[in-house]
Parts: sequence; structure tokens; C-alpha cells
Amino acid sequence: MRSAMSFFSDNAAPACPAVMDALVEANRLDTAYDGDQWSQAMDRAFSDLFGTDVAALWVATGTAANCLALQALCPPDGAILCHRYAHIEMDEAGAPGFYTHGAKLTLLDGDGAKISPDAIEEAVARVRKDVHQVQPRAVSITNATEYGLTYSPAETAAIGEACERLGLAFHIDGARFANAVVSTGADPADLTWRAGAKALSFGFIKNGGMNAEALILFDPAMADQVRRARKRAGHLSSKGRFAAAQILAMLENDVWKDNARAANRAATTLAEACGDRLFLPVEANELFVRMSAEEAASLRDQGFDFYDWGPGEIRLVTSWDQDMEAVRRLADAIAAL
Amino acid sequence: MRSAMSFFSDNAAPACPAVMDALVEANRLDTAYDGDQWSQAMDRAFSDLFGTDVAALWVATGTAANCLALQALCPPDGAILCHRYAHIEMDEAGAPGFYTHGAKLTLLDGDGAKISPDAIEEAVARVRKDVHQVQPRAVSITNATEYGLTYSPAETAAIGEACERLGLAFHIDGARFANAVVSTGADPADLTWRAGAKALSFGFIKNGGMNAEALILFDPAMADQVRRARKRAGHLSSKGRFAAAQILAMLENDVWKDNARAANRAATTLAEACGDRLFLPVEANELFVRMSAEEAASLRDQGFDFYDWGPGEIRLVTSWDQDMEAVRRLADAIAAL
Amino acid sequence: MRSAMSFFSDNAAPACPAVMDALVEANRLDTAYDGDQWSQAMDRAFSDLFGTDVAALWVATGTAANCLALQALCPPDGAILCHRYAHIEMDEAGAPGFYTHGAKLTLLDGDGAKISPDAIEEAVARVRKDVHQVQPRAVSITNATEYGLTYSPAETAAIGEACERLGLAFHIDGARFANAVVSTGADPADLTWRAGAKALSFGFIKNGGMNAEALILFDPAMADQVRRARKRAGHLSSKGRFAAAQILAMLENDVWKDNARAANRAATTLAEACGDRLFLPVEANELFVRMSAEEAASLRDQGFDFYDWGPGEIRLVTSWDQDMEAVRRLADAIAAL
Amino acid sequence: MRSAMSFFSDNAAPACPAVMDALVEANRLDTAYDGDQWSQAMDRAFSDLFGTDVAALWVATGTAANCLALQALCPPDGAILCHRYAHIEMDEAGAPGFYTHGAKLTLLDGDGAKISPDAIEEAVARVRKDVHQVQPRAVSITNATEYGLTYSPAETAAIGEACERLGLAFHIDGARFANAVVSTGADPADLTWRAGAKALSFGFIKNGGMNAEALILFDPAMADQVRRARKRAGHLSSKGRFAAAQILAMLENDVWKDNARAANRAATTLAEACGDRLFLPVEANELFVRMSAEEAASLRDQGFDFYDWGPGEIRLVTSWDQDMEAVRRLADAIAAL
Repeated sequence: MRSAMSFFSDNAAPACPAVMDALVEANRLDTAYDGDQWSQAMDRAFSDLFGTDVAALWVATGTAANCLALQALCPPDGAILCHRYAHIEMDEAGAPGFYTHGAKLTLLDGDGAKISPDAIEEAVARVRKDVHQVQPRAVSITNATEYGLTYSPAETAAIGEACERLGLAFHIDGARFANAVVSTGADPADLTWRAGAKALSFGFIKNGGMNAEALILFDPAMADQVRRARKRAGHLSSKGRFAAAQILAMLENDVWKDNARAANRAATTLAEACGDRLFLPVEANELFVRMSAEEAASLRDQGFDFYDWGPGEIRLVTSWDQDMEAVRRLADAIAAL
Repeated sequence: MRSAMSFFSDNAAPACPAVMDALVEANRLDTAYDGDQWSQAMDRAFSDLFGTDVAALWVATGTAANCLALQALCPPDGAILCHRYAHIEMDEAGAPGFYTHGAKLTLLDGDGAKISPDAIEEAVARVRKDVHQVQPRAVSITNATEYGLTYSPAETAAIGEACERLGLAFHIDGARFANAVVSTGADPADLTWRAGAKALSFGFIKNGGMNAEALILFDPAMADQVRRARKRAGHLSSKGRFAAAQILAMLENDVWKDNARAANRAATTLAEACGDRLFLPVEANELFVRMSAEEAASLRDQGFDFYDWGPGEIRLVTSWDQDMEAVRRLADAIAAL
Repeated sequence: MRSAMSFFSDNAAPACPAVMDALVEANRLDTAYDGDQWSQAMDRAFSDLFGTDVAALWVATGTAANCLALQALCPPDGAILCHRYAHIEMDEAGAPGFYTHGAKLTLLDGDGAKISPDAIEEAVARVRKDVHQVQPRAVSITNATEYGLTYSPAETAAIGEACERLGLAFHIDGARFANAVVSTGADPADLTWRAGAKALSFGFIKNGGMNAEALILFDPAMADQVRRARKRAGHLSSKGRFAAAQILAMLENDVWKDNARAANRAATTLAEACGDRLFLPVEANELFVRMSAEEAASLRDQGFDFYDWGPGEIRLVTSWDQDMEAVRRLADAIAAL
Repeated sequence: MRSAMSFFSDNAAPACPAVMDALVEANRLDTAYDGDQWSQAMDRAFSDLFGTDVAALWVATGTAANCLALQALCPPDGAILCHRYAHIEMDEAGAPGFYTHGAKLTLLDGDGAKISPDAIEEAVARVRKDVHQVQPRAVSITNATEYGLTYSPAETAAIGEACERLGLAFHIDGARFANAVVSTGADPADLTWRAGAKALSFGFIKNGGMNAEALILFDPAMADQVRRARKRAGHLSSKGRFAAAQILAMLENDVWKDNARAANRAATTLAEACGDRLFLPVEANELFVRMSAEEAASLRDQGFDFYDWGPGEIRLVTSWDQDMEAVRRLADAIAAL
């Protein structure tokens, strides 16, 4: 059991009150699968949020959202360009290979797990246009990235333009999309479809949800195939209303933004204390901090919990419900090292 | 929105109070994925229930449970023998083909969606033992079946013996396993591993759960591969404690049995009213009833809701929370037709 | 080693002289893969034969031809309707499941391994149009069938019309297409694209080829994906000229028709001797003959070789090079039983 | 059509006389698939060659040999470590992903497309041993490499030891195995099973074969699954005797070694002329040569044909039948540049 002193992972945080209330509210007899009133309201709710017609599907995990998107955007014989440290490459147990029936991930470099239009261009240029080589068909970026950086609307649009020019479909892994939105202050539309994105894995779980993520398809014509693939992957929950209800509850009253702001604020507070120990800017809710083994041990002795990132490095993650008193104590402890 | 007058599907029912309470209780900071105290308690809890060491994994749907089991029991080039009306054949959108990477379902006949050892033997005998034909490698039965019948311990053991003799792995789809257990009065062990079963999809959702099923592996050595496949299929929930907690809550105090008994009891009450309209025995919580279109319309006029099964046939399904007053009203209405 | 007395399988026959000569002729330095002059001539040669623009690819086996076609015509989540005794179901080791990434074969009945438009309609009608059930997407017939019957142009067109009406892609397994063409006397176009077929596996090996079959795509726009899939399946031979050359040699001077006529003629001669022992008409180069175990043993004692089809049944297959003297001796021996 | 002046690719070369004679010899009636006398002799012939019991299967292409081996050595959820420039990564259109059902290729660096035990160790060390990351399960090296270098018995054994220590299966892509054997002078056993290799793709086509490669399994217990997978991939030729016969013909009288020696000798002759233009040692039949665009154009004006490798680089490949007069002319022309 982890305590308020934990800065280990936003996956470890509880579900937020709005979600718990919504589950109680949805706990009535209704149509099975996604025929219920909540599931049926998803398309509308997200279309309103994004200012364009979208199809919105709940799924149980971010991996499912990512890979259902990728299987729709890349054929089995194609390649998906992504960062070397992308979650789909590093932490999804090969799920992209499973869902796409064997498509390849082509790995790009870039600081802070961000990729650039140039990196995409170069990767495409390296591939001969023949049947012997796997042809690039899609790009996947993560916003905020696995290293806590964000893509601005302009950066996202530049990637979208490269995709358009090179005939690549554009997917965004938004496990921490909320953190990116409130950090950049951008319109969600400018971080997605207006920049050319075809699909977004819109994360709710790390941000206060229980067990539902949203997959947003900016081309609703894709929905029929993806709904079928969702069922085929065992992700069509028979009481889908519990998934839809928690997502809708977080959209209502901008709970998703409030939660993300709280997490980002805690991170900013810590960032100030860390100063030049930071080896990456803090733009969302993750901090990557230089720290000797002795220093880390000292913090742990004081009750703080976090992840060892590498030799001389730790990672701190703040959550939607991070106790600000604990945050201040950690900030002080780091400053005092 | 469906009402208390609905006999449409047990998937439409709410989650039971024990489950809702458990979710609130589990809503604390804990380790992500399946490192939390609840998830870690699963193996022990089911080992106690079955009286043997098992590995127990939560997943989000029955389809995921079934297909994770099947991919472990049947190689891509093999065949799984199942009934022509098995859920894995009829209602899982080809998920077995996806999870097994292309294995084949060989369809057997049998009354009430039950298969017999003879049917298995005959199907195996029809296959030449060469590389040209897909070799049978597994059997999957459903208990209770898609037509509401149960397999007794003796019937299950007979299938297990056929599997053993023929070199086939034995899986049980127990989406309504609880209903079968209380209906037969059998020890769960006698309906599973003592009869030779290697894996059981143990259903909780239809029986009062929210969104978690259990996959029970009677050979714990299989667990490592299956846990990996679960992650690869996007079924490793990052806040897994919410899945584990609801399952454990239903095991505690035999909630799972009480719920199933309530559903079965409602079905029995209706069965008496249906008399020889029934074209199959009622052994769990489903009734298959001969009824003219006019009669069905008359019941619907009275507010009852149910599924049209075929020409002149309807299906009634009772749930753990079926209102007994509504049950009696429907019984009376049928008797009065 | 089998002798001239063998009526076991047309796969056992040698390659014909035109093929052997063509291999010698092609045994020169040329471009690798399918860049050589022979491979480049395939599209034109088959377009001339069929009287429409087609793409024509060589592959090493009929299974590869069938399954490359099926993966292009049916998505992973779809079903292919075929006869219960179709080669793709019975004798390809699950290759369709491999190439299509898990699509399902839905099995139809029909005499002599032929399927009818009605059987297709009924199979489609049984499927609910929802995400839970695997949707039919393609039909595959075999002409001549696995039981040696042929589809006429009218029968083929009727199937094509059903496919068109029901939104199904239409594939023909023509492992013995040559035998069907000469037996029906039909224009190859009327047995394929004019009847609505999208792809034909055009068999050469059983008919005197060595190790090359042709996959004909009646919609050349499919070729890019199929060429890629061929490479991905390890079927892009690096010295492809040897595949192309043998196919072109059999097209030239109608060798393919002469060979098929010879095989059919031998079958007809035997059919006359078999009389009402035949339990299926003889329309190509296969005979299915009622024969007691004693009678079969007697024939074998006289040196004849053939396949036991079932209790009291044998199968005789005639080849392009069947020795007519041996045929007459077998005919006499059967008549004398 | 390419001429004797071509140094473009050993895939462009003809089949050698021993192969052509063997095809004529095998052109008789025999059992279909791999039941014939030639196919049945494969295991014995290669067991004799390697001095241990092996299973030996013919297949149509090197890609098929490689990927049938890999699917047997690596599960769908695993990773295969190989060089960044390995044929399986660069030039097989994603076939490893297809055959393994989605396994991942993890790319290693190393000069001349060779990988070292250290590179393997480091790659394994980077992977967390949990269900989130794809676990390394196999290593594949190419000998001779895609850059014409060879692994010595000692180097191969060192890789085998690393594999053993790390629990990885060891595969060798031997598209140019013959060139490596004669170049190193090593016993084939020392380059394979004595060094711990489990499977070898033994190339014949580039070395004078027509369309058959051998897949050698040093653990014959693997053969049952691989034979099944071969059929499932459409690679069980129905007249398999033509594949077996050409392979056996090249084993007989060491034709395979003579052919490889001829190709290597031509390469050595050219290497001397290239001097320090070579940016990699010449250890087999490929030369990588620094050459300006003008110089390359000059050679082409003289009738020579070859592949542009990169800016200022060309590749020369010599074949088993390379005309030594043309070789000397090219050597002179290069020396004269």
C-alpha cells in the first residue's frame, strides 16, 4: 500500500470523486454493451469538445486505445514511425505487433522523447520504395511525452504536415493528453485534428479515472472497423455504461482539466526545488532529476517513494490528488540535499 | 433505459452492493497494474475455492478470458473443438482467431449446446494425422451452456477423459459458471480440474460484477505466458485493484453463489409457468420458450421485455437482482396466454 | 517410385516437355526477383488469354495462390464462405487463417463439393449484422471441384450475382481450372471475371508444371498489395524467371489445354468402364468409385495404384501424361470385377 | 537481360549444370509433396554433412527458410536480436513479423553487419524482466553477412555461448553459407551446431540452385512443428522432388563448395585491384568499393554492371559462374581508374 508520500506513478492514484459518483449513478439496469445512454452519448460529448464530428469509443486501457488506432491506420505490412522511447515500443509488450498483425515500429531519436518532422522525413527517405522493404504508413507521437514534454499546436501541425506530405497516418498517444492541454493552454482541436491527427488515445485513468480510456477517431468513417476490432480484441465490455459514465463525468465541468492542472501544479512546485538537477524541462506532471544514490536513499528515509530512472537519476510523477503538503515537504527535502 | 420488467439479458443488470462497496474500499493509492494487495490475493482466494493451486488473473471481459485461455491451449496451426452455438463461435467477432493467430474452431453438434465425448471422438477421427489437415488440439465447453443447460461433474469428467485420451487441452467457458455450480450443487473442483480442465473463464459480470472476469489456470505454470499475453492484448489494467477487489468481494461470503441462486430461482419460477412451452430444460437462468408473435406482443404490451430467439421462440434471462414481484407477474401473464 | 499404373494423384506426375524446355531456355543471367523478361510478360499473356487487363503473379503452390487471394479479399475480422470439402478448409493446414490473420471459413453443403447461390444466401442470412458476429466478406469456389465436378459459365455467373448482391468478394480456386475449361468448353473469361470473380488461382502444377502456379487478379489495382504480401510470405522467388517461364510455356500453343484434355480423356475412358459404380459424375480428371475392399485389393494385385476414399470407395485421378494403354487395362480390369 | 559483364547480384546468375541435370533426372512419376525418394533423402544427406542428426526441409526462398526458423525459435511475444542491416530486417518485407505473429526485431550495431556477444549482452541488459517489455528470445546472425564478412568458428561459438547464457535461441541466416564455409575453411559443424546454433537457413539459390533452399534444424524434435508451419505458409510444394533433387545434386561431389570457391575467387581477384578503395574486407563474394560517380559511370561505359551502394560507393557481387575473363577486365579497369 502506498502513501501520500508517493511520487511513484499516476497509475497508482485513486479514482476521483466525480468518477465514483458516476459509477453509482450508472448502476442501474440498462442495455448491454454500448447500447446504453452513456455510451451513446460519447460521440456527441467529444464532438462538442473537439468542435468537429468524431467517433469516441471507450476501452479498458491505454494500450488498447493505442493499438486499436494503430491497426486502423497501418496495414500488417507497414511500419509505424515512433520515438525510441514511445510507450508503444517500450511498455506495451508488443501489443502493436499483435493488433496490427505484425507491422513494424521504426524508431526515431529526439530529445525528451519528442520527434521532429525532419526525423520523420529522414526515416522515410531511408526506405526504398519496393516490395522488399517495409513501407512507412503511420506516425505515432505521445503528448505529453514519456519524458514529460509537450508538443505545442505549431509543433503538432508541423508533424501533421510532414505526415500529409509523406502519405502517413497520424496518431497521438494521449495517455497524459489532459496534462498537455492545460500545460500548453491550447485548444484540444489544435493539438489534434486541426494539426492533421486521425486518432487520439485520450487518457483518463492516470488523470483520475478508474478503468476507462477514450479512443477518438477524427474520421468517424473509421469507427465501424474499429468497433469491430474492439470486440474482436475482447474490449467490448458487456456493461459498457460503467466505462462511458466515468469518462463523461470527467468531461463534465472540466474535471479532466482541473485534475490535470492539480497534477501539473504539484510538478511545477517540485521543479522549482529541483533547479538544475532537472535534466529535462518540466512541462506536465513528470520530473526527471539527477540525484546520487545517497541522496535518493536519504529522501526514501524521509518516507518519499519514487522510481529509480537510471544511474544517478530518479523520476517523480505527480497525480491529480497529490497532497500539496507532501509536495512542499518533498520540495524542501530536495532543496536541503 | 430498461426496467424491472426486463428479462432481456443478465448483462443489463446492475453491479451488486458488495461490488460497489469493494470499489469504494479499493479507491486508495496502491501499486499500479497487478502489484496491489487485491490482485496479489487472487491466486490464494481461488486456490482455496478450488482446493488446488491455481493462478487467477482478472480481465475485462469474458471474451478476453476465453481467448487468453485458448491461445495458451491451442497453437496457431491447431483446432479447437466446440459446439456450433458456443459463444466463442457465435458472439466473439472472431476473437479466438485473433488471439490464437489463426487457429480454427471445429464445430460439433449436440442438444442444448452441449457436446458429448462421442462427438469429440468422431471429430478427431475424421482428421488425417498429416501436415495437410489442421489437427485438433483443444476442446472448449460452456457451463452453463448458451442454452441454459448444465454439465454435471460426471459429464464434465467424461469430456475430460476424452480430452486426455486424445491429447486435447480442455477449456471451460464459465460465463455462467456460478449458475451451473448452484444448479448442480457440485463442488467447483469437480466441475473443473478434477474433471481434467486446464482453464476456466469464471464469469462475474453477468452475476453482479461490474467489469471484471477471472481467468483460472489450473496449471499455474501456464501463468507466465498468459500474463504476458494479457498485457499484449491490452488487458493489463493500470489500476488493476479495481478489478481484483470486485472479484474478491463476490467470493467473500459466497456472494457469487447467492447471486446465482437468486437468478436461477427466478428462472425456475418462470419455468413452472411456461410448462411445455419450454423447448429446453431450465437448469440455470435462461429460458427458451415457444411463443407466437401475437403472444409475445401481448407480453410486451404488458411491459415485459425480452429477446426474440427465432420464429415462434423467445428467450428469457433472469438476473441476480431480478425483482420477484415482476417474475411472478410474468409467470402469471404467461400462464394466462 | 510410382509407375505408369498409378492413378493416385496428378501431383505425382512429371513436368511436361514444354516446361522442361522452357527451364533450360530461361537458364541465363537475368534480373533477380520478378524483374526479368519472363515475369514481366505474365500480365500481358494472361490479359490476352482472359480478354481483359489482369495482373498475374507466379507463386510456388496452390495454397499460396489461394491464400494470397483470400487475404486480399477478406479482412481479418471477416468470414469466407466455402464448401465443407474445399481444399482451403480440408487440405491447407489452416493457411487461410494464417494469411488472413484469423478470418473464418464458414462451411456450406452441396453435392460434389459444389455450392449454390442459395446456400450462400442462407449462410449470409443467418448472420446478425452486428459487431458480435463475424461478417461474411468473401466466397471461394473450386472449379473443377475437389470431387471432380465443374461449374458452368451460367452457374459461375449465378454465384457471382449472389456475391455482388450480398457484398461478397468472389474467389475461384482453379487448381484444376484447365480441366474445367476444356470439359465445359467455356471461354475462360466466362468462368471468371465475366461472372464476377475477382481472383483466380490458376493451377499449372497438376497439369504438367513443375513448381509454379499463377494468381490472376481481375482488378489489377489489387496487385500492389498482393505483390507485397507475396514477398512478406516468402514467395518472391529470387530467380523468378524459372517460375514465369514454365507458366508462359504452358500458355503458348495451348499446352495447358492439351494437357488437360489428355487427363480428362483418360478419366472419361475409365468412367465408361465404371458405369454405375460412380457415385459422382465425371466432369474432369477425378473418379469416385464404389468398390469393395476385395475388389480394390484385386486391382492392386494387378499393379494399379490409387487412393482409398472411404469405406467401399476409391478415388482415381488421371494425369496429363497418363499412359492410355494403362488406362485401357484399368478400364478392362474394372469392367471384369 | 544481363550479360557476363554483370556484377550486380548472385541472384541473377543461372542454375548450375548439376542442378539442371538433377531436375531432368527427377522428372518422373513419384509420390507427391515430400514423400518422394529425394525429399526422404534430405535428412540423411545433411546429417552426414554436419556429422549429427538433423532434420532438413526444402523451401522455395531464403525468406521462407529464415522465417520458418524464427517462428519456431521465438514466440509471438518475444524479440529476435539481429543486426540493423540483417536481411530479415531490411529486405524481407516484414516476413518475420508475419511468420512469428508479431515478434519484434531488436536491432544491434556492429561493423560489416556483424554482431558481437557484447552487443547481445547489452541489448538483453536493457530489457526489464517484466510483462511490460518484450523479452529477447532469439538471436539471428548472417554468415557470410550482408556486407560480405564471415564469422569464424570461434566467433560463432562466442555468440552461441552468449545465447546459452542468456536463454536465447540461435539462428543463422546462411544465404551465403557456402561462401563462408570455403572462405573460413571451417567444418560446417563448427560454424553451426557445435557453436550452439539451433537452425540454419542453408542457401543454395545464390550459389547455383534454381529455386530451393534448405532449412536445417539441429534439434530434429523441432521438425514436426516446422513441417506443419511450412505447409501452413504455402511452402509444401506438391512436386517436392524437384526441390530436393537440386539440393542433393549440389551436395553431391561438393558442387556447393566448388561453386562458392569460384565466386569467392572472382571476388578476391577484384579485391586486389580495388586495394584501399575497399571500405570492408572481402571475405566472401561481395565487394564494397569507394568510387566516385564519374568513375562508376566510366566503368558502366565499358559495359560493367553493378549496384550503387551509397554516395561514392558501389557494390560488386560475384557469382558461381562469373566469367574470369570479365573479372580480369573489370580488375584492370578499376586499377586504371
